[in-house]
Amino acid sequence: MLSTMQDEQLSLATLLRYASTFQGDSHVSTWTGDGVRTQTYREIGQDAARLANALRDLGIGVGDRVGTFMWNNNEHMVAYIAVPAMGAVLHALNIRLFPEQLVYVANHAEDRVVIVDGSLVPMFNQYLPNLRTVRHVIVANGDVATVQAPEGVTVHAYAELLAAQPDSYDFPVIDERSAAGMCYTSGTTGDPKGVVYSHRSNWLHAMQVISPNGMGFTAADTVLAIVPLFHANAWGIPYAALMSGANVLMPDRFLQPAPLLQMMEQARPTFAAAVPTIWGGVLAALQAQPQDISYLRTCVVGGAAVPPSMMRAFEERHHVKLLHAWGMTETSPLGSVGHPPAGSEGEEAWAYRYTQGRFPAGVQARLVGDDGSVLPNDGEALGELEVKGPWITGSYYSPSGGEVDPDKFHDGWLRTGDVGKISPNGYLTLVDRSKDVIKSGGEWISSVDLENAVMGHPAVAEAAVIGIPDEKWDERPLVAIVLVEGAEAKPEELRDFLAPKFAKWQLPEHWTFITEVPKTSVGKFDKKRLRAQHADGTLTVITLA
Amino acid sequence: MLSTMQDEQLSLATLLRYASTFQGDSHVSTWTGDGVRTQTYREIGQDAARLANALRDLGIGVGDRVGTFMWNNNEHMVAYIAVPAMGAVLHALNIRLFPEQLVYVANHAEDRVVIVDGSLVPMFNQYLPNLRTVRHVIVANGDVATVQAPEGVTVHAYAELLAAQPDSYDFPVIDERSAAGMCYTSGTTGDPKGVVYSHRSNWLHAMQVISPNGMGFTAADTVLAIVPLFHANAWGIPYAALMSGANVLMPDRFLQPAPLLQMMEQARPTFAAAVPTIWGGVLAALQAQPQDISYLRTCVVGGAAVPPSMMRAFEERHHVKLLHAWGMTETSPLGSVGHPPAGSEGEEAWAYRYTQGRFPAGVQARLVGDDGSVLPNDGEALGELEVKGPWITGSYYSPSGGEVDPDKFHDGWLRTGDVGKISPNGYLTLVDRSKDVIKSGGEWISSVDLENAVMGHPAVAEAAVIGIPDEKWDERPLVAIVLVEGAEAKPEELRDFLAPKFAKWQLPEHWTFITEVPKTSVGKFDKKRLRAQHADGTLTVITLA
Repeated sequence: MLSTMQDEQLSLATLLRYASTFQGDSHVSTWTGDGVRTQTYREIGQDAARLANALRDLGIGVGDRVGTFMWNNNEHMVAYIAVPAMGAVLHALNIRLFPEQLVYVANHAEDRVVIVDGSLVPMFNQYLPNLRTVRHVIVANGDVATVQAPEGVTVHAYAELLAAQPDSYDFPVIDERSAAGMCYTSGTTGDPKGVVYSHRSNWLHAMQVISPNGMGFTAADTVLAIVPLFHANAWGIPYAALMSGANVLMPDRFLQPAPLLQMMEQARPTFAAAVPTIWGGVLAALQAQPQDISYLRTCVVGGAAVPPSMMRAFEERHHVKLLHAWGMTETSPLGSVGHPPAGSEGEEAWAYRYTQGRFPAGVQARLVGDDGSVLPNDGEALGELEVKGPWITGSYYSPSGGEVDPDKFHDGWLRTGDVGKISPNGYLTLVDRSKDVIKSGGEWISSVDLENAVMGHPAVAEAAVIGIPDEKWDERPLVAIVLVEGAEAKPEELRDFLAPKFAKWQLPEHWTFITEVPKTSVGKFDKKRLRAQHADGTLTVITLA
Repeated sequence: MLSTMQDEQLSLATLLRYASTFQGDSHVSTWTGDGVRTQTYREIGQDAARLANALRDLGIGVGDRVGTFMWNNNEHMVAYIAVPAMGAVLHALNIRLFPEQLVYVANHAEDRVVIVDGSLVPMFNQYLPNLRTVRHVIVANGDVATVQAPEGVTVHAYAELLAAQPDSYDFPVIDERSAAGMCYTSGTTGDPKGVVYSHRSNWLHAMQVISPNGMGFTAADTVLAIVPLFHANAWGIPYAALMSGANVLMPDRFLQPAPLLQMMEQARPTFAAAVPTIWGGVLAALQAQPQDISYLRTCVVGGAAVPPSMMRAFEERHHVKLLHAWGMTETSPLGSVGHPPAGSEGEEAWAYRYTQGRFPAGVQARLVGDDGSVLPNDGEALGELEVKGPWITGSYYSPSGGEVDPDKFHDGWLRTGDVGKISPNGYLTLVDRSKDVIKSGGEWISSVDLENAVMGHPAVAEAAVIGIPDEKWDERPLVAIVLVEGAEAKPEELRDFLAPKFAKWQLPEHWTFITEVPKTSVGKFDKKRLRAQHADGTLTVITLA
C-alpha cells in the first residue's frame, strides 16, 4: 500500500531558501583580525544566487565539481550552500594535505573550478600547474594578479564576479540522492578515498546535528566553527546552521588561542566545535590570562578523545561543557555524541562523558569480532565497530565505477576500522584502530591503552605501541619510547609501572627507544612507518624475560 | 553524479529496534485510576514482537490495515509501533466520530483486525455488525465475552494472544514510501477523507518533533500524551518518543482535570500535549485547588488557538509554558510551532507566542489569494495557507485509485483551507477557515475576529459569523448571537461595541438571535448548517441601516 504523502525531495536548496527568508535576520560573521565582517542569511542567500549565476556562466552544470581552497569565512559558507543548491558538487579541498595528496584528490574529483582565499594563493600556486581539470580559479579576499595561472586557466575576482550577477537564481529541483559534496579521507594507507554526500544525507544529518541528542543548537545560538569546512563535511555545521537559523562565527585563518579568545570575547559564541588540540591551547591561554567564557555553553569535540582532565578543567574553571562526539568522513560525520543518560549525575555522568558517546536512532551500530561474528553490546566485548544508516557511506567514489576498498564494507555496513565496546544503553568506548590493535593468543590488546598508560611515566615524552609477529601468540606488543630530554628509564622499570593496570598477559616484553614517533600529515602517529622500521631491522629491540 | 551514501530506508522498525535496545530503560506508563502500570521500552519491544507474530498468524501481511479502537495506553503504544514495523498499516479509529462516520472509515480503509479496549467494547458493539472487512477483534484490558461478534468474526484476548508468541520478530526491510498508518479527517463537508502516512514521513516528522524548533523533547523528558493516539497521527508523539528515548505517560480514559492532576502529581511529566479545552479545565481545577505543577516545563497546544489569558495564567501562576502549534491531519501534523525568535522578550515574545508559530525548514509555506496568485509574507497580506514538504499529504486515499477532492491540492501544494498571514520571519497568524472568511467588495473579513470581538460583550454567550450573499458586495457578514440567559442586547448596541476594533466597511449590518450555535461531532461551530438555516429562511435577520 502506497502512502499519500508528497514525494518532496530533501534538497539543500530548501535550506538556502528557508534560511534566507524565515531566518533572514540570523547571520554569518568572519573574524578579520580585529573585528568581524557580517552578512545576514538574507545577504548570504543573495550572494549564493550570484555565485550560482556566475558558476553557470563559467559552464558549471548539474554534477560538476567545484573545489574550494579556503579558510572558514563568509565566502566559504556561500560556496558551501550555493554549489549544491544549483546541483553542482562542492569539493572542499583540505589545505593541510601533503602536496601529492592534494593534487591527487583534485584530479580524482575532476574539479572544474576552484575558489581560493587570497592568503592561500601562494600555497595554491604550487599545486595549480598539476591540477589537470581546473579551468577557472576564483580568488576571494585577495589579488587575482598573485595567481600563477597556466595556459587554459582563467582567474576571476570573487567580489567582481558576484557583483556582475543578479541576486536571485531559480535553483532546480534535485533528486535527493544526487551528489551534493565530496570529502576525501586522509588515510594513512594508500591514496585518499572519496566520499560523496547526497542532498538527502546532508539534510538528514543536519536534522541530527540540530537534534537535542546531536549538537542541539538553535536560532538562539552563535556557533563558532573552528573545525575547518574542508574537514569531514565541516561536521555538518553549515547545513545545520541554515536549517536552524543559528548564527555562525568563522575564525578565518586566526586559529591560535589568542585570536580565538579575542573573537570569542567580541562575538560571544554559545557553541563551538573543534578538535582537542585547539581546546588544549585555549585552556593553557586561559590559565596564563584568565577571561570569562561562560557565555559558551557547549564545545563539541571530535577527531580524537579529550583527556578527562581537560574536560573537567573547562567545566570546573570556566563553566563550559566539552561534549565528545565520534564520527569520521565516512559518517557525515556525526555518529555518537557524549550526552550522559537522563538522571545520571556526578561521577556516573562523567564516566559517560568520557566515552565516545551514544548512538542516535539514525545510526545503527554493532561490533564484529575477528571471525566476522556479531558481538553483544554488553560493555565488555571488544570488536570492530560497524555502522549503518542514511548518512553513512556505502562505498568510496570511483570515477570508473569500479569498487574501491570493498573490504571496508560488510553486508551493507561500513567497517569503521575502530575497535571498541558498546554498552547496553548504546555508549561507545573506543580502544584502538583495528589495524593497530594487537591480536595476542586470540585476545585483543589495545595499543592506545598501553600508550596512554606508559606516557603517564615521568621519563616518557611519547610512546607508540605496535604489534609484531610472534610464533606462539600470533602478535605481541612492541613499545617504542621517546624519552623526555635528559631522562632515563629501563624497560623493566616501565613494565613494572604498567603492571598494576594490565593483565599479566597484556604486559609488553618488547621495547625500543627512538628519537621521535613518525607522524602523518595531520599529526597522527604513523604506525605503518614504525612497523616498516621494525620489519627492516632499523629498530633495536630489547626483549625482557 | 550519484552519491556514495548507503540507501538506508527510513523505516519505523529502526525506531522500535533503537528504543528497545539503546533506550531500553525508558518506559511507557498508563494511569489506572490510582497508580501507573509501566513497561520499559525493552518490554514494549518484546510485546511489539509478540503482537506482530500474533497478527501474522491471523493472516495480516504487508499493507494490510489493522485498526485500533482504544484510549491512550501501553497496548495502544505497542500497536502503534508493531503494526507498521511488520509492514502492516495502523489505522487508529477515532472513537468520537459520529457512528456513520466511524463505520464509513473502517470500511473505506478495509480494516482486517481491530484492537479494542475493554471499556470501549459496548460502543464498538454498535458498529461491529456494519464493519464489512473486519475478521478479528482483539480485546485489550477487558473481557472477550462482552464482544457481540457477528458470524465470521473471531474474538481474541490481547494478553493471551501475546503470551502465546515469541518475543522476537524479524521485522522486514520496508521501502520508506510504503504506508505505515492512516488517519481520516473529521471534515464538516462530505465523507471523512483518508491520509496515508509513510514510514519516511513518520520518521522525518519524528525528527522534527524532537528538534528544538519542534517540541524538543529528549530522553530526560516524560511526555504526558493527552492528545488521543487516534487524533491527527497522535501529533507524532509515539514515534518521537521512541526516537528520542523519552518516557511516555498515558492517561487511558481518565481525561478529566482531577485524574489528570492526580497522575501528574504522581508521574511528574515534564512535557504534555493536548487541545486547549483540556488546559482550560486543568487551569480551573488548579484555581479551585492549588497544586505545584512546575515540573511541567512545556505543554504543546494545538487544534485551536489558546486564549492569551490562559497562556499567561499558566506561565504566571504555574510556571508552565503553553506552546502553540499549528497542524492538521494532512500535515502529520506538525506545521508551525510558537517558539518566539531568539532575543525577543516580554510583550514582543508574547506577541509571537500568540501566533500559530514559525515554520521549520521542512515545511514550505505560502499564502495564495483569491485569484490564485502567491502573496507576500509581509505580515499584512491575507491569503489561504498552502504547504509543501516531506510529511505533508499530496492526495487523499482512494481505494479505487481515483482522485479525491483534487481541488485541495494546487501545483503540488496542499491547500490547508486556513486563511491567515505570514510574517517576514516565518510566523503564521490564522484568521479564519477559507470557507468561512467573508469576501466583501474584494476584501476579506475574518469571521473569527468578529466572533471573538462580539463574544467580549457581557450579554453574548456565543456568536457565529457567516457570509451571506449580497448583490453589491458579493458577501456581507451575518452575526448569529446566543445571548447569556436573561441578558438583552440590541444589534445597534453590539455593532457600536465592535466599532472601535474594525474598519467601518467590516462592521456587520446583518444580525440574528438564536438559541444555540450548531456544532460538529468534535464540538466545532457547524457553519454549514447555519448557512443552510439562513438559506431556507429559518433565521430571522435584522438588518441595520
